[in-house]
Amino acid sequence: MSNSIQIPDNFAICQAADRITNYINKTPVFTNSAINKILDANLFFKCENFQKVGAFKFRGATNAVFSLNDSELEFGVATHSSGNHAQALALAAKNRGIKANIVMPEDSSKVKIAAVKEYGGNIIFCKPTLAAREETLKTVIQETNSVEIHPYDNYKIIAGQATATKELIEEIDNLDIIIAPVGGGGLLSGTALATHYFSPKTKVFAAEPITANDAFSSFYSKKFIPSVNPQTIADGLRTSLGDLTYPIILQHVHEVFTCSEQKIIEAMKLVWERMKIIIEPSSAVALAILFENNIDIKGKRIGIIISGGNVDLMDLPWMNKK
Amino acid sequence: MSNSIQIPDNFAICQAADRITNYINKTPVFTNSAINKILDANLFFKCENFQKVGAFKFRGATNAVFSLNDSELEFGVATHSSGNHAQALALAAKNRGIKANIVMPEDSSKVKIAAVKEYGGNIIFCKPTLAAREETLKTVIQETNSVEIHPYDNYKIIAGQATATKELIEEIDNLDIIIAPVGGGGLLSGTALATHYFSPKTKVFAAEPITANDAFSSFYSKKFIPSVNPQTIADGLRTSLGDLTYPIILQHVHEVFTCSEQKIIEAMKLVWERMKIIIEPSSAVALAILFENNIDIKGKRIGIIISGGNVDLMDLPWMNKK
Repeated sequence: MSNSIQIPDNFAICQAADRITNYINKTPVFTNSAINKILDANLFFKCENFQKVGAFKFRGATNAVFSLNDSELEFGVATHSSGNHAQALALAAKNRGIKANIVMPEDSSKVKIAAVKEYGGNIIFCKPTLAAREETLKTVIQETNSVEIHPYDNYKIIAGQATATKELIEEIDNLDIIIAPVGGGGLLSGTALATHYFSPKTKVFAAEPITANDAFSSFYSKKFIPSVNPQTIADGLRTSLGDLTYPIILQHVHEVFTCSEQKIIEAMKLVWERMKIIIEPSSAVALAILFENNIDIKGKRIGIIISGGNVDLMDLPWMNKK
Repeated sequence: MSNSIQIPDNFAICQAADRITNYINKTPVFTNSAINKILDANLFFKCENFQKVGAFKFRGATNAVFSLNDSELEFGVATHSSGNHAQALALAAKNRGIKANIVMPEDSSKVKIAAVKEYGGNIIFCKPTLAAREETLKTVIQETNSVEIHPYDNYKIIAGQATATKELIEEIDNLDIIIAPVGGGGLLSGTALATHYFSPKTKVFAAEPITANDAFSSFYSKKFIPSVNPQTIADGLRTSLGDLTYPIILQHVHEVFTCSEQKIIEAMKLVWERMKIIIEPSSAVALAILFENNIDIKGKRIGIIISGGNVDLMDLPWMNKK
């Protein structure tokens, strides 16, 4: 296995950036004077909603797939995912010319199933429980000899996600704070590592729905406390931290803030209205914590990682809440 | 009056670009591999949805306001508008430090009324008919001595709108076609002039809803045939061509294509889903004509002017059509 067994260092993140550069979009950084005025701060939005497959996940998946050596490649890769990682891994495998076995719960959205198929992913459906997903994946790996690419608890994935923050820091200097949402912690731990190496004076804040606050609890208690079946509109943030992401977050993240569902919806709608870009609820969490908490941001330069833009346009949260 | 009485020449458009450069956003040009694949062409979207006030209208309004001389400035500017021109003129006047009197129908959307107020516009409400709007504006101008800035039948407005295409041509070379939507024709005539001066080999296509096809009829019959109370979801395109815009369009536009309401909605949703940007129905028309008509675009390089992104997020067309 070439899956790295060490926390990515600055060289590993630079290697990841080089490895994926021909496959990913170098996403733009947007600013918005109206939102800056409301918050009395200078916000810089790193727009991973414009990334291929519509989410940062493609960075990590590409780095993981292109880090495999020839013998590992032979039987392809595998994962279970109902969301962005499924699409990301399918496309990364397609680019590498190998097979991707994607275990998806049978109630996954039609749009996401279609996208995985479009990228040539081999879908294996299972019952919509975590146990069934893990069991099915285990069977698939035994039968196919494919290599599992975990969505976040994998150092190559973490190094890949870190490249978004590396790009942000290269484009925008003197950031006081960088904020990333946290689910399994792949994006957040990558963000924290890249900031630590490339802009060590910048503080890293994690943003989490209050109804799925395992990172908040685990961070401040210094004891791993997973969420159990959390309910939040931020569907990308329902997972709990992993064995590899949690220690990085404990060491390199400065604060974790939470916010309500209502503030997530309001922040998402504000971005759609003012910035004219489509972001998913999980991304809105990174902005929402600034409206929910009394954080000293006056005049500060703040990077916000917009994690993705995959939403069901037939089912928008402000419609349901009307 | 410093309102120009001649069709803008290439120098007038360059002057406009210089005049407004410190006030406007230089908007990005986006591409999308999925949409290119569907159409088997190379599309370049000039994203005026990211322009200030969310629409290209701010270019023309800024050029018009900043073209006024000191004596004309004294009593401010005036217009009637329920839409993007109202906001655009209010903000342009604010930037110039003068007063803007905006006649708005009393049933205008709350969001647009709030935006005009936010920019310091002096709103005068009237009954929601064209006659009431024109009558009220006439009274306001008589009482205030302010200068009328027409939303499209004004050469300074046309020269301002032309700058979007000038930027597009400077950034993307060898375009075969540029497509702009047409309502009153300010954007289209500016697009056609800029293309004629700065990229004369490029063809200019106009895009219009079939239910508001006054430009189509007037273009091919060579007789001005206004639309009467047209019904279309593309609310920016309900107006008919003007005395100044029609002759420019006749001379410099190559073809006018129409499309159905259903295709407008589908094109709008496609852009939201694939490009993760918010565009308004009027903008979607420029893409929709490519799906509706059998136009030879295979392998061609096509500029699409995305006119704006101001939509009511509580009232999306695919929701109504569900």
